[in-house]
Formats: sequence, C-alpha cells, structure tokens
Amino acid sequence: MKPGESVASSRDVKLHALILAGGGGTRLWPLSRRSKPKQFLREFSGEPLITDTATRLHPVVPAARTWVVAGMSHEAGVREALPHLGAHLVREPMARNTAPAIALGVSAIFLEDPDAVVAVLPSDHHIGKPDRFRAVLAAAGQVAAERGMLVTLGIVPDRPATGYGYIEFGATLGRVLAAEAFDVKRFVEKPTAAKAVELLKSGNYLWNAGVFVFRARDLLEHLDKHLPELGKGLADWRAAAPDAREEIAFRVFEAAPSISFDYAVMEKADKVAVVPASDVDWDDIGSFRSLARVNPDDRGGSATAKDVVSIDAHGNLVHAPGKTVALVGVSDLIVVDTGDALIILPRARAEDVKQVVDELARRKRDDAL
Amino acid sequence: MKPGESVASSRDVKLHALILAGGGGTRLWPLSRRSKPKQFLREFSGEPLITDTATRLHPVVPAARTWVVAGMSHEAGVREALPHLGAHLVREPMARNTAPAIALGVSAIFLEDPDAVVAVLPSDHHIGKPDRFRAVLAAAGQVAAERGMLVTLGIVPDRPATGYGYIEFGATLGRVLAAEAFDVKRFVEKPTAAKAVELLKSGNYLWNAGVFVFRARDLLEHLDKHLPELGKGLADWRAAAPDAREEIAFRVFEAAPSISFDYAVMEKADKVAVVPASDVDWDDIGSFRSLARVNPDDRGGSATAKDVVSIDAHGNLVHAPGKTVALVGVSDLIVVDTGDALIILPRARAEDVKQVVDELARRKRDDAL
Repeated sequence: MKPGESVASSRDVKLHALILAGGGGTRLWPLSRRSKPKQFLREFSGEPLITDTATRLHPVVPAARTWVVAGMSHEAGVREALPHLGAHLVREPMARNTAPAIALGVSAIFLEDPDAVVAVLPSDHHIGKPDRFRAVLAAAGQVAAERGMLVTLGIVPDRPATGYGYIEFGATLGRVLAAEAFDVKRFVEKPTAAKAVELLKSGNYLWNAGVFVFRARDLLEHLDKHLPELGKGLADWRAAAPDAREEIAFRVFEAAPSISFDYAVMEKADKVAVVPASDVDWDDIGSFRSLARVNPDDRGGSATAKDVVSIDAHGNLVHAPGKTVALVGVSDLIVVDTGDALIILPRARAEDVKQVVDELARRKRDDAL
Repeated sequence: MKPGESVASSRDVKLHALILAGGGGTRLWPLSRRSKPKQFLREFSGEPLITDTATRLHPVVPAARTWVVAGMSHEAGVREALPHLGAHLVREPMARNTAPAIALGVSAIFLEDPDAVVAVLPSDHHIGKPDRFRAVLAAAGQVAAERGMLVTLGIVPDRPATGYGYIEFGATLGRVLAAEAFDVKRFVEKPTAAKAVELLKSGNYLWNAGVFVFRARDLLEHLDKHLPELGKGLADWRAAAPDAREEIAFRVFEAAPSISFDYAVMEKADKVAVVPASDVDWDDIGSFRSLARVNPDDRGGSATAKDVVSIDAHGNLVHAPGKTVALVGVSDLIVVDTGDALIILPRARAEDVKQVVDELARRKRDDAL
C-alpha cells in the first residue's frame, strides 16, 4: 500500500487545506519583491511555490477542498497560480499576522463544511517527498478528527537551527496510519545558537514548520476561549448575509490584535499533539542557501544560467537565467541576478539579504523593493 | 608658456599621428568582445578610447594629420569613432602584428607628406594629463626631426610591472622643448617578477608604452635594412597607381612575417632615443583594475551602476550600468555586468580574464566572445 492510498481508508476525514499566502517577504531579494513574494516564485520548481503547495496535497486534499487566505494585493497572483480556486480565495482585509487570518479562513471553511478537518499550510515551502508528506498529513488529520486535538507537524531537526521555533514532544499517542503522534509538552521560541545545540542534542524537540491540523469546530471553540473578541466577531461574520460579510470582516480585523497563531492559540491550548514529519525533505526556502537544491553542479554549488565558467571557483550558488557567468577565484558565494538587480554575498551570510532590503528602504528605493 | 603652446615654436615639425587600431583584445571581457575591442569602449571616459587617443593630441597633431591603421572588421567602428578620418583610414589587409601595419601606415603618410614626422600610438590607452603628454610628444618629434633618430616614449615606472617591456636609457641628449631625451642602451622583454624589481630599483629603466616617433623617410630606410622584403613591397605599393594598391598591399602582407615593430625594427636600429614621459598619468587599461579610475567611491572601489548597496564590503570595482547592485561581506572583487554576461573575480586576479576567454573559446561560445 502506497502512503497516498492509506488515506482513502480513513473515510470520515475530509481534509481541507487552508494555505496562507499573506507573506510579503524580501528574504530572497532581488528574486522576491514586495509585489512578488516568495510564494509566487517559479525559480525553485518551475511552478509558483503556492501552486506546488496546493498540488502536492492531491489526492489527500483535492482542489475542491483547497482554500487560500491572501491580502488584496496578492489576489491576482493567487488567482493566476491557482486558477480553479473560485470562492475558496478568502480575502484578508488587512495584515494582522496569522491568528486572525487563520480564524477567518477556518470560519469560511466551517460555513461550507461544519465537519471539516483543516490543514493550515504556509504557501512557500519546499517538500522534496510529497508522498511521505501526504501520509504524515493524513495521520495528523486522523488524530485531529478522532481526538479533537490541535495537531502540529514537527520537522525532525538535522542541525541546530536558530531560525525556527521548536516543539518539545512528550508521551506517544500511538501509531496513526503511517505515522506516530505525540503529546506536546511545550513550544519553544526561536533559540539562541547555544540553546539550539542543546535542543538538538536532547532528541526531544522538533521544528515548528507552521503546519497545523484541527477540526474547524474545535478551532472556533479555542478562538472563543483565547481570542474571544475575534471569536465573537467571526461568529457574527458567519451569521451575516454573504454580501454583508466583507464589511464585517474589515471591522473585525481592524479591532483584532496583530498576533501569531502559534502564540495566540497553539501555545495556550490544551490537547495539542504533534506528528513528526520525518523524511519529507522539508525546506522553508528561508534564504538563498536553498538555491543549492536547484540545478546542483559538480563543484558543490548550483548553476541556473546560460553558461557558467568557473576557474578556481567552488560551492557558488548562481542564479542568472539566460546569462553567461564567469567566476574566477571566488568560492561559496551566492550570486543572484534578475536583470535589474544583482546581489553577491557569501553563503554563510545568506540571512543578511535583510540588511540590503533595509538599506534600500532607507534610500527610498521603493522601485527596487 | 603652456606645454601645448611650446610646439608652435618648432615650426618645421609637422607631426602626424598613426594610430594602431588592430587590437582584438578580450582582456576586458565581457566589456570588450572580438567585435568590440578595447579601443571602442566608452566605459572609461564616455568616448571611445580611440576617439580620446586622437583628440587629446590636438593641436600638436590636428585632425588633418591623424591616421589610423585598422583591420577590415573594425573599419565601421573606426569611422564611427573618428568620422572625419576620410582617406586617412589605412586598411590592414590581414593581421600581421605591428611591424607591417606601421610600415604600411607610414608609407601612406609618406606619399602625402614626404617630410612627415610620425608618432605611432596605440589606440586604447588612457592619458590622464594630455597637456603634459602633448609636450612630451612634441619633444620627441623635435628629436626625430632634428637628429633623424627613432624615438620612443618611456613611461616612468611606479611599480615592478611584469606586463610591459622595459627600455634601458643611457646618456642624455639634452633638454628638448619641455622634456629631455636619452640614448637607448637596450630594450628588455617583459621581465619576471624578480627581474622587474631589479629593473625598477636600478632607476635606469622606463616602460615601453608602444609610442614611437620618427621621420617617415627614416622609418622607410630602416625597413629596407631590417625587413627588406616588406620594404621593397611597400616601395612598389607607393609607386603603383592608387587603384592597384589594395591588391599589392594584400600580397605584401600575405608574404610578410607576423612580427612586432619593437622586435623587427626598434631593437635592431641604431640611433634610437627615448624621451621619458613623466607625469602623464598613463594607463594601458590592460585589465579591469583600471576601473578603479572610473567613478571612484568612498570605499576604495568604484561604482558604475544605478545604485550600489555595500554592507561590510570594500574595495570592489563594480561596473553594471543601470543596475541595482548589493554586495555583502565581499571585498576587493571586480564585478562586471553587461546584461548578457557577468564576471566576478578578485582584483588580484584581474589578468585571469584571459582564462575565461580561453574556456569560452574551448566551449565554442563564439556568440559570447
């Protein structure tokens, strides 16, 4: 039995996907821009990352149960990437971080399917082994459906990363389909480097990848408890006539705190489980280091270009489509060229793209951001 | 008295300029290409270098006494850069290094002005102080005219360069106008690094910049002596009817050795003088290091771009017109972007552009060369 097929046997779980496309990231500048955040980039697979995010879930989550929450400015991009979305594109009236966005999306799903089990997913991650990912997601859906728990997916760490939150897992809840579920003891915020080494060593921690699975009705109950004003506002939203909802959503968001779902709900809820997502080849494409996945060359680097001539040059990540690139005596650099902009920095400083973006903002180079 | 004016007093010397535009250099790839060698680049002054080469000589050499020897493939480029050249563009039938090219050019000048004094000049050098250069050239012209000597200009070395030939100078021939002339003891080929240090220390050596001044008739006599077959062929060429000359030139060049003027004539001639060209701010733009002259920035580098954001980055020479460039944590790099091609290499390895060009040739990337 293939992992994808195992789900068909869990007849009662109708998994919906709620994809969050609110990001405005510039961590991959100049590839990503304010107007073209990471989820729309085609550079990693040929398709926009958000398209990959949706299609890799089939058939566990078919297109008919796929939803996206996105800000107004990204609506056109989302429609282009997912042309069959129809009414399942939920408009975020304004940016208020993930808690209000997820709450609104789940409210919309609940209206259509009160028994829905919802998988919340970032729109811009890479999953190298989608078969295995679907199996893990199906297992998480099963736990959520049967136990009424809020379930997170936990990525098995392979290095002491400081860029992610960690999840300490406790007692096993047993095997579920092709995976295993555990109680969550606690969530740990992004650690220092020393702390991260400690967490990795202990073997009791997983990375929080921002993937959550729960029954829609359970989430709405948690909302009433932990964010009662937002909960009440969205209850009004659901009760209102469809053509009144846009205005209500606007007022609800205006009044809502800008707060993350992890912090506002997951860390406060009881009955939280985690399903380790082992061997899914996950990458949040949080920096240009992920270019190493794309067109790897025989010099420990990668080359997306018309031609790359390397002389005494190794480990360079080159992204310059259509261009002839010559590298002499330089190693472990990231070189990204988009025609109008060029960035060069060591792989070890991939995160410092942020400083470049900050400086461009300071220079009021809105045209380049 | 300004240097430029000193010449007017030497009434009898009618200096002609013979500019050699035969280069096909790719030392500045991807800026220079086979079809656009260095002499046509506008990146260093806004004008093609060959245009600068001609105009900086005015009024010592007016446009009416300016000549160019160029291969067929560069004729259009020369005409564009020097639109008033007319019949003073001498076509090199094929590449045979500098001796045949200069001999042909001097033959053409001799036909128009048997008393001509000719200054031979490379077409693609930078001279930061043209006033001073004109004064030195006028002095060299005076020595050539009065003494019938072959005169070279010698650049006063400021470092133990291994990329140039050296000239050992001997006894003074006295002050001439605003300069001083010396006997040449010998020419030294491009030295090793150790040898170059020795030459620099001794204080008796100057760089051979490829600038030669002589009476046309003296050169033709030297030719008969040192390259008799070429000398005879060009005598026939001069004696022939104008419309027969193209074919004769072709045959003469076909039979001629491919040999440098330095080696074939200057090193063998007696009566050779040198005029030190001190303080002319000479640069042969032999590598991308010369970019440091263009748009110097406050970080020890240079920036020709729409915008350069440097974070922990110093001494970088950036040439990427119209582009936003971000450099993080990289120093002393040369970064040259031409839209279709990009090169990145340390300043210390500027000469290794040659290796890139060789590799592109090996890959049969004629489109990029």
